[in-house]
Amino acid sequence: MNQRAVTACVLVIGNEILSGRTQDTNLNHIAVTLGGWGIQVREARVIPDVEEDIVVAVNEARARFDYLFTTGGIGPTHDDITTDCIATAFGVDLVESKEIAAIIRQRSAPPPVMEARMRMARIPHGATLIDNPTGGPQGFRIENVFVMAGIPTVMRAMLSSLEGKLKSGPVVRFRSVTAYLGESQIAAALGTIQLDHPEIDLGSYPFFKNDRYGTSLVMRGIDESALETMLEEVKAAIVAAGEVPEDIKAG
Amino acid sequence: MNQRAVTACVLVIGNEILSGRTQDTNLNHIAVTLGGWGIQVREARVIPDVEEDIVVAVNEARARFDYLFTTGGIGPTHDDITTDCIATAFGVDLVESKEIAAIIRQRSAPPPVMEARMRMARIPHGATLIDNPTGGPQGFRIENVFVMAGIPTVMRAMLSSLEGKLKSGPVVRFRSVTAYLGESQIAAALGTIQLDHPEIDLGSYPFFKNDRYGTSLVMRGIDESALETMLEEVKAAIVAAGEVPEDIKAG
Repeated sequence: MNQRAVTACVLVIGNEILSGRTQDTNLNHIAVTLGGWGIQVREARVIPDVEEDIVVAVNEARARFDYLFTTGGIGPTHDDITTDCIATAFGVDLVESKEIAAIIRQRSAPPPVMEARMRMARIPHGATLIDNPTGGPQGFRIENVFVMAGIPTVMRAMLSSLEGKLKSGPVVRFRSVTAYLGESQIAAALGTIQLDHPEIDLGSYPFFKNDRYGTSLVMRGIDESALETMLEEVKAAIVAAGEVPEDIKAG
Repeated sequence: MNQRAVTACVLVIGNEILSGRTQDTNLNHIAVTLGGWGIQVREARVIPDVEEDIVVAVNEARARFDYLFTTGGIGPTHDDITTDCIATAFGVDLVESKEIAAIIRQRSAPPPVMEARMRMARIPHGATLIDNPTGGPQGFRIENVFVMAGIPTVMRAMLSSLEGKLKSGPVVRFRSVTAYLGESQIAAALGTIQLDHPEIDLGSYPFFKNDRYGTSLVMRGIDESALETMLEEVKAAIVAAGEVPEDIKAG
């Protein structure tokens, strides 16, 4: 059970997220997907389409985590600078991928349009491709960095193609239970339960719904029996506080 | 017009975002709100409820940006460690805020429940309060760091109370126009337009909707007349590519 955790960082590249024009949903999808594969997302960053910011963030993250996944900035327009920045971060040149170029040439276009599209065929020297099941140009991987599109449908297709191809650690499982009471009413009990089970992470997430305060208690860890034990203790704490444990889930 | 930009970083603190259990929406709201006040969000980070990670991220961000806004981790339970981490980051002790304690004592509770709640009255020495129009315990500010709740309704209330109390720079305005064509079809024209107007940021955001490819062209900058000029040039580029400019917006 002491299999080492495999960690990841997600780098969301794009001014449109930071301006608030677009609500990012890629981080959530990547976190859930990688989690299911036994890879834990430990940090995410949203950064602008600025070369220095991207290069610094890529080099920091690829050193700190097992994997780095980036989204955004690999299209054909002038503001798509991610590929160039990844090459700079690794200190390598850009080369033309014959495979991507072949995909791009499948759709004919006037020379200036084709020239713009061919921008997407450039990858850093040493990179390998990430399949794009939507049929468009591929993403790429260089060492532990995976460079994917920003459009959610394309990003999801690219990510799905990586299933089974990455190293993985233990899958983090969860139990959750909801109680319609204020967090403070069971805070002391939760603190004790957490201390008794340091290997399981116990989180309390308050909400206000249907005119009632409640909290979702979420237990995360690798050991199923420890999760079950903690769940029983949390349920007992809810009952002791005079409420009913509801909406129990496991996964 | 050369008023200095005022920048901000958003730090989303919480395991539940990184596990994918919860879709963050706080960043988007903060970005839009601050943008309207003349404060530009230049970076965001999502980090776990881990002391070292929080302390390092806070100290890096408060040095790099004019303002740092954090969300999450200021409730009454054992996993709410943000306040402690902020005090550590600033190298100060925690003190009890009489104002927050008074708010908390307005709702009576048995001693152990009250004790848990009083955890929320602790603030770093030297901090001042951020009003909480929902009526619950306040957030706090220390130097250029603003510490807010993670629950979106509470975070939004706290943020709204800061309106007019922060320094501000020029407000970034936008123009946008949609074209149902592939990005490559106008990539060359967009590149030229961007080069001609370096003070305006021109972004191209492709989408696939109703079985058609399209792209949203978004111009951002401070100078309204430069924005109008660029918009006209982008519209002309769309027409030259054989399509119709649609859904023109300004703000």
